[in-house]
Amino acid sequence: MDSAGTHAQQYDRYKRLVDKALDGLVKGQSPRSLYEPLRYVLDAGGKRIRPVVLLLSCEAAGGDATNALHAGVAIEILHNFTLVHDDIMDNAASRRGRKTVHTRWDTNVAILVGDELLAMAYRALLKTKSPQIQEIAKIFTEGVVEVCEGQAYDKEFETRSTVSVTEYLLMIEKKTAKMVAVSAEIGGLVGNGDRPAIQALRRYGEHVGRAFQIQDDLLDIVADEKELGKAVGGDLVEGKKTFLLLEALRTAGGRDKKLLTDIVRNKGGKADLIPEYRRIYFETGAIASARRRVGKDIARAKRELHRLPVSRAQAMLGWFADMLLNRTY
Amino acid sequence: MDSAGTHAQQYDRYKRLVDKALDGLVKGQSPRSLYEPLRYVLDAGGKRIRPVVLLLSCEAAGGDATNALHAGVAIEILHNFTLVHDDIMDNAASRRGRKTVHTRWDTNVAILVGDELLAMAYRALLKTKSPQIQEIAKIFTEGVVEVCEGQAYDKEFETRSTVSVTEYLLMIEKKTAKMVAVSAEIGGLVGNGDRPAIQALRRYGEHVGRAFQIQDDLLDIVADEKELGKAVGGDLVEGKKTFLLLEALRTAGGRDKKLLTDIVRNKGGKADLIPEYRRIYFETGAIASARRRVGKDIARAKRELHRLPVSRAQAMLGWFADMLLNRTY
Repeated sequence: MDSAGTHAQQYDRYKRLVDKALDGLVKGQSPRSLYEPLRYVLDAGGKRIRPVVLLLSCEAAGGDATNALHAGVAIEILHNFTLVHDDIMDNAASRRGRKTVHTRWDTNVAILVGDELLAMAYRALLKTKSPQIQEIAKIFTEGVVEVCEGQAYDKEFETRSTVSVTEYLLMIEKKTAKMVAVSAEIGGLVGNGDRPAIQALRRYGEHVGRAFQIQDDLLDIVADEKELGKAVGGDLVEGKKTFLLLEALRTAGGRDKKLLTDIVRNKGGKADLIPEYRRIYFETGAIASARRRVGKDIARAKRELHRLPVSRAQAMLGWFADMLLNRTY
Repeated sequence: MDSAGTHAQQYDRYKRLVDKALDGLVKGQSPRSLYEPLRYVLDAGGKRIRPVVLLLSCEAAGGDATNALHAGVAIEILHNFTLVHDDIMDNAASRRGRKTVHTRWDTNVAILVGDELLAMAYRALLKTKSPQIQEIAKIFTEGVVEVCEGQAYDKEFETRSTVSVTEYLLMIEKKTAKMVAVSAEIGGLVGNGDRPAIQALRRYGEHVGRAFQIQDDLLDIVADEKELGKAVGGDLVEGKKTFLLLEALRTAGGRDKKLLTDIVRNKGGKADLIPEYRRIYFETGAIASARRRVGKDIARAKRELHRLPVSRAQAMLGWFADMLLNRTY
């Protein structure tokens, strides 16, 4: 069995640990109007990237991953809190192939379920046994603050006619990367790592998190539709100001530029122009630029890992970064 | 100067401490789309009941109130988080004489501002220096969970045709009383009180919190309109299932019963029938029953205080309970 095979199996083992812990959280509590939709959210599955990074970081820092399970569960519940509230704000009708909470129930239920998820995230986190619990809870909280700020920027950008690539990068650092960085850092703290190890883990998470988001932007236009599980070009049709759109806007000229500014002006592109948009993305070098950034971030993430002692968990974090780089959906 | 005067002045001193700390929290942060409405919320004022109870409880347990200021600020921010989100769910257009966040901005902004307030509440709480910080944060978190459950019951009751008085009492215990109990308990923990003192403080908070809510229900119908600052009978017009309505429904008969069930069926009463509703509330004994409950809860709250050593703060908590009992607006 090759090492990638072993790593993938190991990843699955950690993921199942998290799924099982999540599964035991809600059992017929009252009021049902709150706990039924809450259970629906936690049952939806997902890649569980953040908790697995947290567990691996704990191990890579020299700790026992099982001690970090409560914190891992906390970070996953926190992630689901952001999804439920973001889906309201984004008017999203479905997620992971199922109706969103505010669509299946209503907005009030979704607001309250999100609030309760945030409280449950803290409840799980505070079960962690660590002399550093205050520091851990502080880092977790700064993560929540930045996620809110990131989402505020994201909504603000929707209504603005121009957004710079730098502003976009700040936004995804807050909205996406920070939470992966928090996962890695908290894992390191639970694992009782020394200061350089914890710093390396945090930076690893920042790079991986940012790469993940830009890769997401890329896949929306270069992925195979069947693998992606949804129509290619969805971001364009929705008029999302992604890295690609902002980068292409920066360098396109003439008719191409007009096509792109029309997407912004009309708050959405035309589905039948997607092949055309894609051509512009390639010709302006936006695709190449995004790929360069993702590659660079993954390389940086892996470089940070060299500061940690060699271990299976350290190797797996490297494998995980590569997997994000090579993912096709 | 009589002792009530001194207590009132002392209360004001604590209140100003909290106001000042809140004032320093938000200073021109980005993004403005998030921090401007957030500041608007924290600037709105309020009685600051919960943080003052927390500071007094810290002192009554033998601690220095200034050590509890971060926790006091946390509990007040948490309270404001619940107001912002509840106002969305309740479709409330104004609060404290100003537009609610979702009315002045929009629902998305109000959702995000609430989320950020919750994160900021934890940020403040986690600044507390106490060997018991993990326990304190756990108690705070269970408070958030119960507030969410209380709000879920409250919304559920709106759509139900019958709600028992017992169910109503459970709801206000979660939605209102719990947070006062949490304030008192956390104050006691920061003050390093012994176990019986902390238990006494928690129970004091539970009783005072419940009394406060039932007194609120009472004032809606028996208060002087000018003192109350809003029209008497608002709860009836909105069809709120208050203690009074549920208690009167239990014992009314004939035409009176029909008038009350009409309020429930039509999801609201008629403004011109308010004198009639008031008569029914008096004649069924609902008013007397509510007054009895408030009086009993206040007496119980004060009895708990006897378990604490005699001190100025202990006396002030007693004065504060009496003030709630005698408040007219």
